[in-house]
Amino acid sequence: MANLQPVLLSGGSGTRLWPLSREAYPKQFLPLAGDDTMVQATWRRVAELADRAPIVVANEEHRFLVAEQLRQVDAPVPAIVLEPVGRNTAPAIAAAALQAMAAGDDPLLLVLPSDHVVRDVAGFQRAVRQAIPAAEAGALVTFGIVPDAPETGFGYIQADAGEGLRKVLRFVEKPDAATAQAYLDAGGYYWNSGMFLFRASRFIEELAQFRPDIVDAVRAAHAAAKHDGDFIRLDKEAFASSPSDSIDYAVMEKTGHAMVLPVDIGWNDVGSWSALWDVAERDGDGNAHHGDVIAVDSRNSYAYAQRLVALVGLDDIVVVETDDAVLVARKDRVQDVKQVVAQLKQDQRSQAILHREVHRPWGSYDSVDMGSRHQVKRIKVKPGAKLSLQSHNHRAEHWIVVKGTARVTRDNDVFELFENQSTYIPIGAKHRLENPGKDLLELVEVQSGDYLGEDDIVRYSDIYGRSE
Amino acid sequence: MANLQPVLLSGGSGTRLWPLSREAYPKQFLPLAGDDTMVQATWRRVAELADRAPIVVANEEHRFLVAEQLRQVDAPVPAIVLEPVGRNTAPAIAAAALQAMAAGDDPLLLVLPSDHVVRDVAGFQRAVRQAIPAAEAGALVTFGIVPDAPETGFGYIQADAGEGLRKVLRFVEKPDAATAQAYLDAGGYYWNSGMFLFRASRFIEELAQFRPDIVDAVRAAHAAAKHDGDFIRLDKEAFASSPSDSIDYAVMEKTGHAMVLPVDIGWNDVGSWSALWDVAERDGDGNAHHGDVIAVDSRNSYAYAQRLVALVGLDDIVVVETDDAVLVARKDRVQDVKQVVAQLKQDQRSQAILHREVHRPWGSYDSVDMGSRHQVKRIKVKPGAKLSLQSHNHRAEHWIVVKGTARVTRDNDVFELFENQSTYIPIGAKHRLENPGKDLLELVEVQSGDYLGEDDIVRYSDIYGRSE
Repeated sequence: MANLQPVLLSGGSGTRLWPLSREAYPKQFLPLAGDDTMVQATWRRVAELADRAPIVVANEEHRFLVAEQLRQVDAPVPAIVLEPVGRNTAPAIAAAALQAMAAGDDPLLLVLPSDHVVRDVAGFQRAVRQAIPAAEAGALVTFGIVPDAPETGFGYIQADAGEGLRKVLRFVEKPDAATAQAYLDAGGYYWNSGMFLFRASRFIEELAQFRPDIVDAVRAAHAAAKHDGDFIRLDKEAFASSPSDSIDYAVMEKTGHAMVLPVDIGWNDVGSWSALWDVAERDGDGNAHHGDVIAVDSRNSYAYAQRLVALVGLDDIVVVETDDAVLVARKDRVQDVKQVVAQLKQDQRSQAILHREVHRPWGSYDSVDMGSRHQVKRIKVKPGAKLSLQSHNHRAEHWIVVKGTARVTRDNDVFELFENQSTYIPIGAKHRLENPGKDLLELVEVQSGDYLGEDDIVRYSDIYGRSE
Repeated sequence: MANLQPVLLSGGSGTRLWPLSREAYPKQFLPLAGDDTMVQATWRRVAELADRAPIVVANEEHRFLVAEQLRQVDAPVPAIVLEPVGRNTAPAIAAAALQAMAAGDDPLLLVLPSDHVVRDVAGFQRAVRQAIPAAEAGALVTFGIVPDAPETGFGYIQADAGEGLRKVLRFVEKPDAATAQAYLDAGGYYWNSGMFLFRASRFIEELAQFRPDIVDAVRAAHAAAKHDGDFIRLDKEAFASSPSDSIDYAVMEKTGHAMVLPVDIGWNDVGSWSALWDVAERDGDGNAHHGDVIAVDSRNSYAYAQRLVALVGLDDIVVVETDDAVLVARKDRVQDVKQVVAQLKQDQRSQAILHREVHRPWGSYDSVDMGSRHQVKRIKVKPGAKLSLQSHNHRAEHWIVVKGTARVTRDNDVFELFENQSTYIPIGAKHRLENPGKDLLELVEVQSGDYLGEDDIVRYSDIYGRSE
């Protein structure tokens, strides 16, 4: 019994896949390659190997998303370690290791980024099983991807001579094109995938040897963590005091116990729109299209459409169409999407970070239409969930129940609304919306008034602690 | 006093400017080059010259649009001749000529397509004034555009030697590139702009000489026309019996009385997205962008955005983003947009013909959101307008007044709703919406139910004659 503990790293913000991926709802939570979201696919990939419920290291603001998405694929209830600030992978994995050892045992950590594609799941599982004995014996095992092209976007791992699991000779930074080609020609070089297998205590020992400052800070942050249901909130001050460093720099490049298992498992980091085109199914003209796309005489294009997108006479173009933003880019220039996101951030525009549909602990809302004197929102409320008791000084609200049952508090009245029924909240009335049922409540809210900002809200009480 | 009668031809469908221009609301009704729509700009261009209210030849389904748009620019109330079917320009102009002579006089017709750009309005007006004496003397004058490039998309007119207004030697079809270059080098060749000046009776005489069948059919259609307010509905059977032919083929190429006045007046037919790029103001990188566009390292692009559009690393690309469809095309391939429209028509998709916002005699509606059990529409009702008395078997409707005043009939009740108020129409209730006020009524309608098709409607009475 290996006592294998999956650790899912969910800290990425995925801005190179804007506008589909945004900080508040990034790449790992999107179904970019198949029906599952990427974090769901990551769990499914390890479910069969796992001896324990997963530990997920995530951003504070993604906590409900992670929990909900793993619940949807019937994962055992995870421990969700929340990073109050991002400090790169070495502190994140250290926190997961301490959490894994909290009950007194010392499992093998299988550390996986939650936003990669692995096409050959059986091959992945064989590789993990193959690496277990070495990890149990104290090695820090990394999985190196057999390269099929001289990629300049990844770091490389040079393995010792031999076959299968071997000692690491060295880690090398992202190379230039000539160097990458030389690695490919020489053989024995593998892409650094960011997947690891090692005993929890061994990782902490090695980290303590090279970066005791990180271990000290993370130990303090974990010891002072607040437990809130399945969430473990690391202490902010202590965690923030940790240096920011990657596992590669902090440990793997320095330790004498690094080993690499070369694998060829259909891996892709899906780090850009061109990478998504690489992994997508394509038609005879090399086009990969999702959604409602009409292409006239176009080749090697990638198009993602929520509405209708028509392409005419295009080669090597990426088009991504979402509710509130459209990206059109040359496929070999998709790395520069980050410049668009930087521009939007500089202009403090919501599209840099938020989708039109915004997720909340109680469900979600999606602002589907906005005029000068009205706004229309689709609102979804989870079973049992309850919005805050609130009032507005400048707008009336009109609620129409589309699906499920709503319980409405309006000043001194409490009443239920069923499908096809509606009610009206006058300006100034104290009101609350809740879902007393067992199914999702869907309603349409129409706000009308002369000021419709989100800041026109007085909160009287809130079960999610947002009244302050 | 020249007794100049402007005739605005508004029959085009503008599908090469899809998705902005669509059959039900085409190019001439859009503000494609400036704040005015193109038909409005066409009227303004001739207003100063005109001795009479304009005659507009239009499609039946555009009648309220034409009337409304001309009213907005304070044009005198036009006579709107409605074509029951399209029969090209010769019958259309013949109908206008008969209408112009209906009161017993014989004005000069200044025939203008309503979807062209003319930058030099003063130059245009000078040219018309210059042509008047010849037209009064019986000539059929056409305005030839001085070419500045060997365009292959236009027909050419060869003028006799000389200066200014001259006899036409011949009309020639759209040439190949070498021929177009030869015309340009030779001089004396002008683009056929489709603008004409002639006495109404002279046009009918010449048309009767070469195509008596057309004159006979149009005379019958005009004699049997139904007058409906300012609308003159040509008799369908008679008009449909007319051969379809252009004024060029039917008259101008055959008559011995054709004259051409070369003009250099900043004319553009705005016949494609690349033509719009040609006439647009461009930045230092050659980009012409309308709306919310962010461009990273892109050149010579045209982008029209209703939401946010981001361009990365693009050269010579056209992007047109509308509520329900996005076009991305190489700028030198924009003629093939018609293939997209053809495909959409073949698939019987609404985007081929309708915009998301649909215009009706009483105002408009725009379906801003659609779910499996609900639909949200923005509805605008003109002052004094009234929708039909109707009921639905499968949906409830919820109306929220955003602006103005609504009078609501619901079964036996009639009541008024003011801003920020809402009401509820249960499934099966007979109801009617009207605007009793002097301002536009804007409301949000939320439909809820298990079937939301437009065909779930029983109409009991309708002031626009749609009850049948």
